[in-house]
Amino acid sequence: MENFIYETPTKIYFGKDEELKIGKLIKEFHPKKVLLHYGGQSAQASGLLDRVRRCLSDEGIAFVELGGVVANPELGLVRKGIELCRREGVDFVLAVGGGSVLDSSKDIANGVANPEVDVWDFSLGKATPKRTLRKGTILTLAAAGSEMSNSCVITNMETREKRGYGCSCNRMDFAIENPELTFTVNAYQTACGIVDIAMHTIERYFCPGNDTTLTDALAEGLVKTVFSVGLDCLKNPRDYAARANMMWASSLAHNGLTQCGRDTQLVVHQLEHEVSGLYPKVAHGAGLAALWCSWARYVYKANIMRWLQYASRVWNVDIDFGHPARTVEKAIDMQEAYYAQIGMPIGLRTLGVKQEDLEPMALACSRNKTRTLKGDMPLGYDEILDVFKMAYNR
Amino acid sequence: MENFIYETPTKIYFGKDEELKIGKLIKEFHPKKVLLHYGGQSAQASGLLDRVRRCLSDEGIAFVELGGVVANPELGLVRKGIELCRREGVDFVLAVGGGSVLDSSKDIANGVANPEVDVWDFSLGKATPKRTLRKGTILTLAAAGSEMSNSCVITNMETREKRGYGCSCNRMDFAIENPELTFTVNAYQTACGIVDIAMHTIERYFCPGNDTTLTDALAEGLVKTVFSVGLDCLKNPRDYAARANMMWASSLAHNGLTQCGRDTQLVVHQLEHEVSGLYPKVAHGAGLAALWCSWARYVYKANIMRWLQYASRVWNVDIDFGHPARTVEKAIDMQEAYYAQIGMPIGLRTLGVKQEDLEPMALACSRNKTRTLKGDMPLGYDEILDVFKMAYNR
Repeated sequence: MENFIYETPTKIYFGKDEELKIGKLIKEFHPKKVLLHYGGQSAQASGLLDRVRRCLSDEGIAFVELGGVVANPELGLVRKGIELCRREGVDFVLAVGGGSVLDSSKDIANGVANPEVDVWDFSLGKATPKRTLRKGTILTLAAAGSEMSNSCVITNMETREKRGYGCSCNRMDFAIENPELTFTVNAYQTACGIVDIAMHTIERYFCPGNDTTLTDALAEGLVKTVFSVGLDCLKNPRDYAARANMMWASSLAHNGLTQCGRDTQLVVHQLEHEVSGLYPKVAHGAGLAALWCSWARYVYKANIMRWLQYASRVWNVDIDFGHPARTVEKAIDMQEAYYAQIGMPIGLRTLGVKQEDLEPMALACSRNKTRTLKGDMPLGYDEILDVFKMAYNR
Repeated sequence: MENFIYETPTKIYFGKDEELKIGKLIKEFHPKKVLLHYGGQSAQASGLLDRVRRCLSDEGIAFVELGGVVANPELGLVRKGIELCRREGVDFVLAVGGGSVLDSSKDIANGVANPEVDVWDFSLGKATPKRTLRKGTILTLAAAGSEMSNSCVITNMETREKRGYGCSCNRMDFAIENPELTFTVNAYQTACGIVDIAMHTIERYFCPGNDTTLTDALAEGLVKTVFSVGLDCLKNPRDYAARANMMWASSLAHNGLTQCGRDTQLVVHQLEHEVSGLYPKVAHGAGLAALWCSWARYVYKANIMRWLQYASRVWNVDIDFGHPARTVEKAIDMQEAYYAQIGMPIGLRTLGVKQEDLEPMALACSRNKTRTLKGDMPLGYDEILDVFKMAYNR
């Protein structure tokens, strides 16, 4: 087991009606002015934004608004938000929405608090935020896990680059999670969430590491739960228990719990960033689904015992001790069938990815052949291209 | 699933040699003076205390010392510690040891920071700390989970009362967990730790609640892990991986993770506090082992489906659908056999508990028949006495 640091300072308020506490919660931070940051129509149409505005006003909290965050949140809006916050003297950011809104909020908070740095340098890894603004969220989507994570993923539309960075400044001070706020999430977005949550756990599970018995058990339990309650969410979008378990899983899958003791890099996420970076209409979860099974088939032989554990414990495949590879392939086939069942793509073509883009994507992902992705089978440019091709031909 | 608040601010530094960071870590808090608080000979004999003193001195950190914490830490020493801290102007408490030292440190920190309250009133539930001192720990025992928990258990030797209280002020700012520091823990204390960790999870698991699918999966994984790696620790006390998984389990079992969505009260802990309160030489884990199986047999019929889940998922008992009670009893028998295998008592008599003390213990536990312990089968005075009698006659 590798040494690790575990830090999850975000305080969670979970359950029905918890969003009504928002005014009182923010007031504890004594903000001068709050940025209320959100996405498109859904938070407005549902009445949530109006409830939030009322809660803030009831407590006498001054705020300005910035809406318009899109899936794969954009650097351009982040820059606008930073300007707005500086002009208005904002010192607290409230994100109302899903992972995109949260990530946009984090980047804005970091940008405002570190005026000596260009904010895109954080995404490029050229600088790390030293300070940030206080920030909280009312979550409306169970997927990205940004509410408890230390990560932030932003897309630069000028260069078509999608880049993530992790640091302590990216932790929210608090997150309000009311599962009822996800009742109106449609089937496609729900399915994308299932994939994203599962993948946050599964990708950590297959990172290099030994003897992480407890972390493994937690990860296996989390993945099985997500795949199970995910079907319940799709069957009845207003199933409170199912939505609640999904939402809590989204937080725990990405807050660090499922990586303790392993040498972590989210490899399929790295591959996927090239897809939705180049094709911004591709939902992140769909991109992950389209890549995972090809990646899995490409790498599993490098650590057959680990994959046997996964096949046995997560997919309950009876181990064929004479033919362990068959056991693993059965589990991968089952996961692929599950993705198809919930309406997710299992290859890149259905997402509209063009063949001629595979090489540029592999080049970008390997940072012009200078970067190798970690793993029991490390992936350089050639291997990344192989996986992209497999996923294209699926 | 019940609404819940999840708060785990304690930052964990986990792994080999992490304790050497202690000087630098404390320096970040800019303390005026530190109280170095510890127990008996073992931390001195192992050289750990000397290493800590050196790290503090190397960073120019002023400190005073208070040793002598015993298992079931005593109010008397807490009062001494509070006096010492006031006299010396201490504003940071460093606990080096196991759960007893940590709990003593928490109570001292709360006592110093809230001079208007008598510290024993916190334990009696008559007051709640509003402030506390900053505090951290170097953990040397995997058991109580105090390093991440919000709880603190103190014994008043004058009244022979052992009482716990929970609050945000009881959270450590950081905890250093080096599994190697537990290599020298003897077999009996290791076994007590196995029981304590498992019970922190199992007791939450059997609290009232529904649809906690994810919490259940995490709890089941944690308990199975502890029972498994516990045997490895006993077989080879210097098995790093086993000790590491035990240590990490001790933190996660009691930090709140395994109770999210359930209406929590640690019932068997409440019963046990009467045993080790009256017989301070009884180790807490041993007291829990001596009570659990009797409690389990007494209550399981009140929620047979829950207990079937436990029997099937934790003990892998094949469900006898025609006779579900037999399935549950098999699992309880297996857990009892496990406790016997690791050298733990399975009844009260072997701990030296006298028959004439059962009624006074039941009276105290029911707070003179005014308190009922929660659960699918609530336990008032009569039921508590029944369980004590069953455990006495085991």
